[in-house]
Amino acid sequence: MDRQRIKEIVQEVVQKVLQKPTKVPIAVSNRHIHLSPEHLDRLFGRSYMLSKQKDLSQPNQFAAKETVTLIGPKGKIQKVRILGPARGKTQVEVSLFDGFTLGVKPPIRNSGDIEGSASVTIQGPRGQVTIPEGLICAARHIHMQPSDGDAFGVSDGDYVQVMVDGPRGVIFSNVLIRVSQNYKLEMHIDIDEANAANLKNGQLGEIVAIERQISEGGG
Amino acid sequence: MDRQRIKEIVQEVVQKVLQKPTKVPIAVSNRHIHLSPEHLDRLFGRSYMLSKQKDLSQPNQFAAKETVTLIGPKGKIQKVRILGPARGKTQVEVSLFDGFTLGVKPPIRNSGDIEGSASVTIQGPRGQVTIPEGLICAARHIHMQPSDGDAFGVSDGDYVQVMVDGPRGVIFSNVLIRVSQNYKLEMHIDIDEANAANLKNGQLGEIVAIERQISEGGG
Repeated sequence: MDRQRIKEIVQEVVQKVLQKPTKVPIAVSNRHIHLSPEHLDRLFGRSYMLSKQKDLSQPNQFAAKETVTLIGPKGKIQKVRILGPARGKTQVEVSLFDGFTLGVKPPIRNSGDIEGSASVTIQGPRGQVTIPEGLICAARHIHMQPSDGDAFGVSDGDYVQVMVDGPRGVIFSNVLIRVSQNYKLEMHIDIDEANAANLKNGQLGEIVAIERQISEGGG
Repeated sequence: MDRQRIKEIVQEVVQKVLQKPTKVPIAVSNRHIHLSPEHLDRLFGRSYMLSKQKDLSQPNQFAAKETVTLIGPKGKIQKVRILGPARGKTQVEVSLFDGFTLGVKPPIRNSGDIEGSASVTIQGPRGQVTIPEGLICAARHIHMQPSDGDAFGVSDGDYVQVMVDGPRGVIFSNVLIRVSQNYKLEMHIDIDEANAANLKNGQLGEIVAIERQISEGGG
């Protein structure tokens, strides 16, 4: 029995066991920043209101017209887009490549998990602020509705593998499932990951395996 | 039978069938350029000889002290390392991210396959040259000795899948096997791919599947 035949049998078995939808549209996140109301004031002036440039695919989120400059020990990155609305804590999401440009090492974290993450200086038109933590490289993840979770057989907090086809095809491991009524089905990866797979915005990925489930109730 | 059990069985079967070495050290290639003797003359002056900065892992290849600037319609990239010795045709290898910086789209190609690839302008201390083709994004590949090929059960021209572990783990598809007496066992990926997997120079990858074989004699 050769390897190809084994592979075919495995694929058939897995397909029969799963019998579930597997395709997810992928969105490529460029570097961006979420500002706390306080930092928005310090960078743009008191009671400043962000102007919407366009809506994002996740409900109520928008890309602002305003941008800031990030400054690190080795370099700066201009025109970093602000995503609105202003919210709890300031969080800056960059690629590892951006980290080299700035001269800092952003840890790979899930959004919101910024404790002990990297420091960076943020320059706005009316001021500058250095955050002691909040600079991260966002871990790859999939947003979905609870009904999507039911259909895919996964729950919030599970990890899956997602395959992207093509000459530069890859299978991404450790893709976090995030389930909420507020989410639209979409996988988020950064620019480094998109380039590594030569992947364009909106391309489909395929969930090929469930790696870790937080409970057996997920299926 | 749950998914985890299926996965374990599959891994056992595959391991038993293969019974072969699977680990390969990975080297991360930064952007670089190979110059033809003619272009070396035009950029650095007639009969210029490159100075060696350090030997590369592949025999007889070296990184030169000299660098050039790449110029595209949207931007330039300075300090692009020349690899020596000077050889047949000029070939420039950049990441897709570098392509955005320059404003060009380097096709993903195997080294040496530059027909119809992208154009770029190269600036040296004594002159400038615009190549109509030669700018590529190098396709991921593994160099190995014929004895390595025998041990791994692969031949020149085969394609394999390589897994990289860790929180940002990925499985790279379409990894070309290149076999020659002149090669040292090493997988080459670019900066985008290294960042996507949060992978450092010298880390080990594991060949987890043979995707396509040019002949049955490979195993």
